[in-house]
Amino acid sequence: MKAVVYKGTREVAVEEVPDARIEKPTDAVVRITTTNICGSDLHMYEGRAGVEEGKVLGHENMGVVEAVGPAVDRVQVGMRVSVPFNIACGTCRSCNEGWTSFCERTNPVDGMQGAAYGYANMGPYDGGQAELLRVPYADFNLLDLPAGPEHENDFTMLSDVFPTGWHGTVLADQQPGDRVAVFGAGPVGLLAAHSARIRGASEVFVVDQQPDRLKLAAHADCTPVDFSEGDPVQQILEATAGLGVDCGIEAVGWQAHDPTGEEHPELVLDNLVSVVKAHGGIGVVGVYVPQDPGGPNDLARDGRPAWDYGSFFSKGQRMGTGQAPVKRYNRQLRDLILYGRANPGFLVSHELPLDEAAAGYRNFDERLDGWTKVLLHPDS
Amino acid sequence: MKAVVYKGTREVAVEEVPDARIEKPTDAVVRITTTNICGSDLHMYEGRAGVEEGKVLGHENMGVVEAVGPAVDRVQVGMRVSVPFNIACGTCRSCNEGWTSFCERTNPVDGMQGAAYGYANMGPYDGGQAELLRVPYADFNLLDLPAGPEHENDFTMLSDVFPTGWHGTVLADQQPGDRVAVFGAGPVGLLAAHSARIRGASEVFVVDQQPDRLKLAAHADCTPVDFSEGDPVQQILEATAGLGVDCGIEAVGWQAHDPTGEEHPELVLDNLVSVVKAHGGIGVVGVYVPQDPGGPNDLARDGRPAWDYGSFFSKGQRMGTGQAPVKRYNRQLRDLILYGRANPGFLVSHELPLDEAAAGYRNFDERLDGWTKVLLHPDS
Amino acid sequence: MKAVVYKGTREVAVEEVPDARIEKPTDAVVRITTTNICGSDLHMYEGRAGVEEGKVLGHENMGVVEAVGPAVDRVQVGMRVSVPFNIACGTCRSCNEGWTSFCERTNPVDGMQGAAYGYANMGPYDGGQAELLRVPYADFNLLDLPAGPEHENDFTMLSDVFPTGWHGTVLADQQPGDRVAVFGAGPVGLLAAHSARIRGASEVFVVDQQPDRLKLAAHADCTPVDFSEGDPVQQILEATAGLGVDCGIEAVGWQAHDPTGEEHPELVLDNLVSVVKAHGGIGVVGVYVPQDPGGPNDLARDGRPAWDYGSFFSKGQRMGTGQAPVKRYNRQLRDLILYGRANPGFLVSHELPLDEAAAGYRNFDERLDGWTKVLLHPDS
Amino acid sequence: MKAVVYKGTREVAVEEVPDARIEKPTDAVVRITTTNICGSDLHMYEGRAGVEEGKVLGHENMGVVEAVGPAVDRVQVGMRVSVPFNIACGTCRSCNEGWTSFCERTNPVDGMQGAAYGYANMGPYDGGQAELLRVPYADFNLLDLPAGPEHENDFTMLSDVFPTGWHGTVLADQQPGDRVAVFGAGPVGLLAAHSARIRGASEVFVVDQQPDRLKLAAHADCTPVDFSEGDPVQQILEATAGLGVDCGIEAVGWQAHDPTGEEHPELVLDNLVSVVKAHGGIGVVGVYVPQDPGGPNDLARDGRPAWDYGSFFSKGQRMGTGQAPVKRYNRQLRDLILYGRANPGFLVSHELPLDEAAAGYRNFDERLDGWTKVLLHPDS
Repeated sequence: MKAVVYKGTREVAVEEVPDARIEKPTDAVVRITTTNICGSDLHMYEGRAGVEEGKVLGHENMGVVEAVGPAVDRVQVGMRVSVPFNIACGTCRSCNEGWTSFCERTNPVDGMQGAAYGYANMGPYDGGQAELLRVPYADFNLLDLPAGPEHENDFTMLSDVFPTGWHGTVLADQQPGDRVAVFGAGPVGLLAAHSARIRGASEVFVVDQQPDRLKLAAHADCTPVDFSEGDPVQQILEATAGLGVDCGIEAVGWQAHDPTGEEHPELVLDNLVSVVKAHGGIGVVGVYVPQDPGGPNDLARDGRPAWDYGSFFSKGQRMGTGQAPVKRYNRQLRDLILYGRANPGFLVSHELPLDEAAAGYRNFDERLDGWTKVLLHPDS
Repeated sequence: MKAVVYKGTREVAVEEVPDARIEKPTDAVVRITTTNICGSDLHMYEGRAGVEEGKVLGHENMGVVEAVGPAVDRVQVGMRVSVPFNIACGTCRSCNEGWTSFCERTNPVDGMQGAAYGYANMGPYDGGQAELLRVPYADFNLLDLPAGPEHENDFTMLSDVFPTGWHGTVLADQQPGDRVAVFGAGPVGLLAAHSARIRGASEVFVVDQQPDRLKLAAHADCTPVDFSEGDPVQQILEATAGLGVDCGIEAVGWQAHDPTGEEHPELVLDNLVSVVKAHGGIGVVGVYVPQDPGGPNDLARDGRPAWDYGSFFSKGQRMGTGQAPVKRYNRQLRDLILYGRANPGFLVSHELPLDEAAAGYRNFDERLDGWTKVLLHPDS
Repeated sequence: MKAVVYKGTREVAVEEVPDARIEKPTDAVVRITTTNICGSDLHMYEGRAGVEEGKVLGHENMGVVEAVGPAVDRVQVGMRVSVPFNIACGTCRSCNEGWTSFCERTNPVDGMQGAAYGYANMGPYDGGQAELLRVPYADFNLLDLPAGPEHENDFTMLSDVFPTGWHGTVLADQQPGDRVAVFGAGPVGLLAAHSARIRGASEVFVVDQQPDRLKLAAHADCTPVDFSEGDPVQQILEATAGLGVDCGIEAVGWQAHDPTGEEHPELVLDNLVSVVKAHGGIGVVGVYVPQDPGGPNDLARDGRPAWDYGSFFSKGQRMGTGQAPVKRYNRQLRDLILYGRANPGFLVSHELPLDEAAAGYRNFDERLDGWTKVLLHPDS
Repeated sequence: MKAVVYKGTREVAVEEVPDARIEKPTDAVVRITTTNICGSDLHMYEGRAGVEEGKVLGHENMGVVEAVGPAVDRVQVGMRVSVPFNIACGTCRSCNEGWTSFCERTNPVDGMQGAAYGYANMGPYDGGQAELLRVPYADFNLLDLPAGPEHENDFTMLSDVFPTGWHGTVLADQQPGDRVAVFGAGPVGLLAAHSARIRGASEVFVVDQQPDRLKLAAHADCTPVDFSEGDPVQQILEATAGLGVDCGIEAVGWQAHDPTGEEHPELVLDNLVSVVKAHGGIGVVGVYVPQDPGGPNDLARDGRPAWDYGSFFSKGQRMGTGQAPVKRYNRQLRDLILYGRANPGFLVSHELPLDEAAAGYRNFDERLDGWTKVLLHPDS
């Protein structure tokens, strides 16, 4: 089968690799119809994440079940499915408690919890930027979708970015009526904003500086805040008569930078502490890492951004963090799409055949204006 | 001042009564700008609720603060306010826990918890269908609104029916993505449906048989179900591929009746048990009473509707009930109105000067087509 | 193997039946070390539940894994395990949401949700009052225990009665500091009371009339209330200066009866409504059924106890019901046992070899004084 | 009246000051029976908190109501009461939502939320280490206690340290059955541990190095961990077969130090991130400050401890922080004391007449062995 293979820093290629196949009785194989390039794929692409050469990339996958192992009795061949990026066993303590993002059994690396497809340090699983994908514990992991081609660009957001954005609103404990600030208008930030809307926010501010992203924020019925035009905290305080927001979402991560492009890992956290009210919640779905050899200083390299913790405590704020347990949300999000209440596909900018994956990576990585979200269609 | 006075069964009159005034240092007096006739006012109007003659009616009130007592230091003269129908002390255990609807101090009748304006058995307080209203514990009870005339017809729903409908969705534990069934399309049912939408429901069914109400349900982006055209449970099951709904809301109360008009107090509860999924929630904001001397049979008279409790248990369902603690919700609902996310005023059908209150009561009581919600304006 | 077989009304026999064996790749077979007789086994024993003759009974099971199917990769042969009474697939919507008691796939009867071992209407599964038990979806269902014989009489409560009692406190929304009333001092009621203690109740009242049970309630550091000595509601009100309790638990079920033994299905619910405070919670784990052909009157036969619903609404109370999802609680309860914080085995009155099962059923069914809880040991 | 007055760094004196009196109609005056010296009093005593000379200290107060203003109608003269350290208005948004620790009205300093008695930067209120104390908004703030002298040493913990410790367990989202780690065995840490026990923890580790405190931890049925004997994280991992704990509580604050006494503001946070499981909760009730002029380095002085945030995110942990809203918990904690389920007075080491306050401060500040908690009795 054809697959997108990591070849080294800033190099991917579409190559022939052995077909994905049933390896254990609980496996399924999915024929991929759509697989997205994710912002975190770029970390690997840029060579900052230590992924081994030869790995098939891709953790945002959907398709049609091609085959199932003998122990699979819920999922059936021919079923259209979304594949959560988390690979979860369904039977450990974390999975029992709904924390599939911290499955205790699927990542064999000592001390690690949580596995994913085609991802550095998250287990030996190939990704789905390919014609076929092997899915472990298929009955547990796969979400069924209505047959046919409808809502493909919405449903393809169910494997990662829509649940991840939604998770941000949950970690922030967002309530209906809240004023919300989302920092970062990449796919996760935009879908966090979309989620906040669906969950009844009164007002959603979205902070970024890229015009195409700010435009999408406005399209999603949110208020764009351009941080290249001034301190975003001040802008939001002015727009709220000094009240700030009830809760906030971090969708930027450790590579946060100021308008000049200089990295300040503590910058967005500081802004959130300032703009969120006392006893308000902060949800962090932008990625922070324990080690970042390429960081701008010792603390950054050691995963220790020196943010304004004293004010965080004085304001009695709360913070939740981490990768989303996709399964906790994807069914309700699917239904919201089905009934026309959610349309996360609004952020799709480009759809390419699998063969053009390398160009997709390159353009997305260079953040060419308008390259917000790239879908690959192996079957096209 | 002029006020709507209860004179006996199906008789109210606008009369001169002594001005409402500051009686305790924690009181305020509010000059009423809008006061609504509520469905529960009709219970008193119809003589089924044992209210004493001479009582000033009206518990859905808003206006502008006219005077405050010497201990009032948050609320100020001139402030535009919404008056929650619950009269709460703010300092008892129930109030501390947010259950102002069960205040332990404001209703002096032995063993009763919870007080209201102009209401049978809920304390000696006159209502606000008048030029002026005395508000006890004003700093605690009053919600401030932006000055001016804007959103008057939306804000006037904050004193009772909007929070009560919202409370129904909370008692039902409605989650984003849920399919929801609301039984009863009076003001409370319609605003429960509106609330469910704001809270991210995928689909909201609203069951009634009156055409004007069903039309408003459709206007509120919900799916009307006309129970005069067939079993509403079957209609909803058919519309959901047999799944039914995730949660349901009772907004009818003990006078539930079949399409022929015969009262069956257990009818709506039975329907909810049937149509809500296993382990789903049911929120009951339609009123049930411990004693109903006019009930159709012994059980009804004794407040014991013999509903399908065995199935309720077998399905592991949950149920929450009772009057809404308005203060728990009115601030966030006000903000939703301010930001244009909620517009509960859509159900207003008539606005009358206070002098025409008697006609308002009569027409509303006869459920003339199109008389969904009547507002009285003492200042017009 | 030997097994307890249902032979007809009030007749069980220990007979040779075919060995339980692996039938599907996700199965395990457990060699039973302890299996309890449950109060609900008596419903079948008494012929009121329509169980087919020849069925092997027993849903409260624990033992050691004897064999596993080829798809089982978490559970291992030789592992000591508790078997939750719920048979759950682990992959349907209910299971995903933690409601294994309403699994949508393991009970093939149309419209039913939830399966169990050796139980009428809950699927075609044999019970565990036998030497061996087949466990479907073993990786999902089995809870591992420390090897060896320790805590056997405590751990054997993890399959049903301890989680069921605990579920009662959760459905009642019991908080630390609460005053709690538990109606019924059978095994479930006593362990609900034990649970309430562990969860920080200030005071726990336990209502029954059997002296041996009331004695166990006192042993469990609770306050026994003997309803044969006067109205239990009055007794509790007197003991609480008229306050009543913050929440209550129903552990009796539809066969509630007065001190003379006459059945009043609404009796315990009425008491709970009276004794629980306004806006308090009620958890119902005593079983109510949709149809009871042997009920004392038409409403009872139709599963419609006419309890005091009007007061329930007026007091704004909440109620949760239904069979416990054992997996949601059994891990934390196991740990409480391991650390010496819970000792549910205190209610064991008799331990018999499997061969004496018939005597165990007979004596337990006759509620001979002191026969609170009977364990069977197939290996003794 | 006599009162403990701050005179400058490490100097307090008992002096005659004007009697506390009713200043507003909502005030009460309380005759103090017991008032404790708090660890945070020592910050002021040591001159690190910028409190003005002449201030009467003391925020842990209880006594008997001596007088009430004309608007007070719940609290009565002669009532025995506990005074929460938070001074809250009861009518602002924060108070309405139960966050009395962030009252928006009682602290007139611009931008600050939250007031307290006798405390730097928390409003112009004198403390209760005196014969009399003025209590604003008395009906809202005061908790009534049973008359008489019983449980005085337990009840005196209700004003601050017991609710603060309890708040730690709530912020950490502690569940029954959890393994818990508490860092810091001062009064707050010990009562956090006591709280965790009451809330059903399986096992509670308490980390400190002072022998008298570790002894009290053991007395409170917890497992002491002496960090002077080795890395506390390793000690706990070894005691839990490598699992660590389900949640953790920070009760040390920004002056965390290693066994040699060197300050490392990030030390305890790092330990918590290491020892708490993935997706576990951390409750921070030890105080961190936005500015600490006496801190050991620039980051510390700027309130920016550079803790291991990258691992915190990778493990998907949650954190709640801040001063406790005492009123949310003090009623249930009072009831736990009344029924003998809590006995926080176990940590009292010394009881002194008010006149000996200076010696009490000095000895407590020097952390003389055995000086765990000092009570002052103005009436003795």
